[in-house]
Amino acid sequence: MNAEKIPDIIIGRLPIYLRALQHMFDRGIQTTSSQELGEVVGISAAQIRKDISQFGEFGKQGTGYNIQFLLGRLREILKVNRTWEVALVGMGDMGHALSRYQGFANRGFHIALFFDNDQSKVGQKVGDFVVKDTADLAEEIRKEGIKIAMLTVPPSAAQEVADQLVKAGIKAILNYSPISINVPPGVKVQYIDPSTHLQRMTYYL
Amino acid sequence: MNAEKIPDIIIGRLPIYLRALQHMFDRGIQTTSSQELGEVVGISAAQIRKDISQFGEFGKQGTGYNIQFLLGRLREILKVNRTWEVALVGMGDMGHALSRYQGFANRGFHIALFFDNDQSKVGQKVGDFVVKDTADLAEEIRKEGIKIAMLTVPPSAAQEVADQLVKAGIKAILNYSPISINVPPGVKVQYIDPSTHLQRMTYYL
Repeated sequence: MNAEKIPDIIIGRLPIYLRALQHMFDRGIQTTSSQELGEVVGISAAQIRKDISQFGEFGKQGTGYNIQFLLGRLREILKVNRTWEVALVGMGDMGHALSRYQGFANRGFHIALFFDNDQSKVGQKVGDFVVKDTADLAEEIRKEGIKIAMLTVPPSAAQEVADQLVKAGIKAILNYSPISINVPPGVKVQYIDPSTHLQRMTYYL
Repeated sequence: MNAEKIPDIIIGRLPIYLRALQHMFDRGIQTTSSQELGEVVGISAAQIRKDISQFGEFGKQGTGYNIQFLLGRLREILKVNRTWEVALVGMGDMGHALSRYQGFANRGFHIALFFDNDQSKVGQKVGDFVVKDTADLAEEIRKEGIKIAMLTVPPSAAQEVADQLVKAGIKAILNYSPISINVPPGVKVQYIDPSTHLQRMTYYL
């Protein structure tokens, strides 16, 4: 298994499989097939078998996948069999919503640093944390050794803050702003873009 | 071109192409190749050519794609060469953030109905609209003929509200709650799930 050899498009499907398998497991289901998983996630059984086989032998012909085992392997492959601390920049409505989001726990993530450049927000409590000044972002992120950031600043500020994050050593940015940001090679960006999800559904309307 | 014959996984990539092409167009670029587009979106040139060719002949060998023409065709295919009115249920932080989101305009969507079941929020202004009572959801949605909803309620309420939306005639739900919701055949659901995006990046860390 070589990270460079697996296409990113396959890596992108693994978290979808992980989520669907976790839902099955939570409902007490112990084994599944590529057909059954395919119906849940809307991906063909053949594609799922091909994707999963990139990482070794998981299912036995006729008996399907052991869900608990496959969950463990997927978490290991995606490196979420641990908890990553995450920095969040931008304590507007979106930042606050994410600070209370219940979908990070047990999935590998915990927001440990909150930043805003609005001095009226700096020092405010967010759960067990206080909002820090974006001016201190580089120092704080380096001190904590954090590699992942969520960007919930206005579009006009997104590129500038992204540049600061990259300088601070951030290697993965989840961008909520509706603009593209440029980062150097070696830094990953993902976009949370509700319009692309909506457009995928309007096709069928 | 038959809607039933194109795999959903291909449909899911079209909005990604649309977004990337729009960014190119906004920067003044007029033509592109599957290679160039592929580098931007992280999908192989061969896959892009195969996906786009499902809908007809777009590029000429050696001259690439005319971006403006391809944008027009993708909008037509995805049915976003018009504006869809959208209902939003749940005026917490996430609902408020979406009410101000700048990434819907010009991409086919406009939030025209806002609901909450908290009586202290009902009647509050949101831009040009007022928050309505979730109890009146079915009546209001039917009156406006709205087919698309965004669900930003707490996880404990998500299934119940989804059931109400389906009864009101909603055919596409964008779910922000970190739980799976069950809908009947013919209703589409997409999830906004930051953890899956983060997991796609931790693989590379």
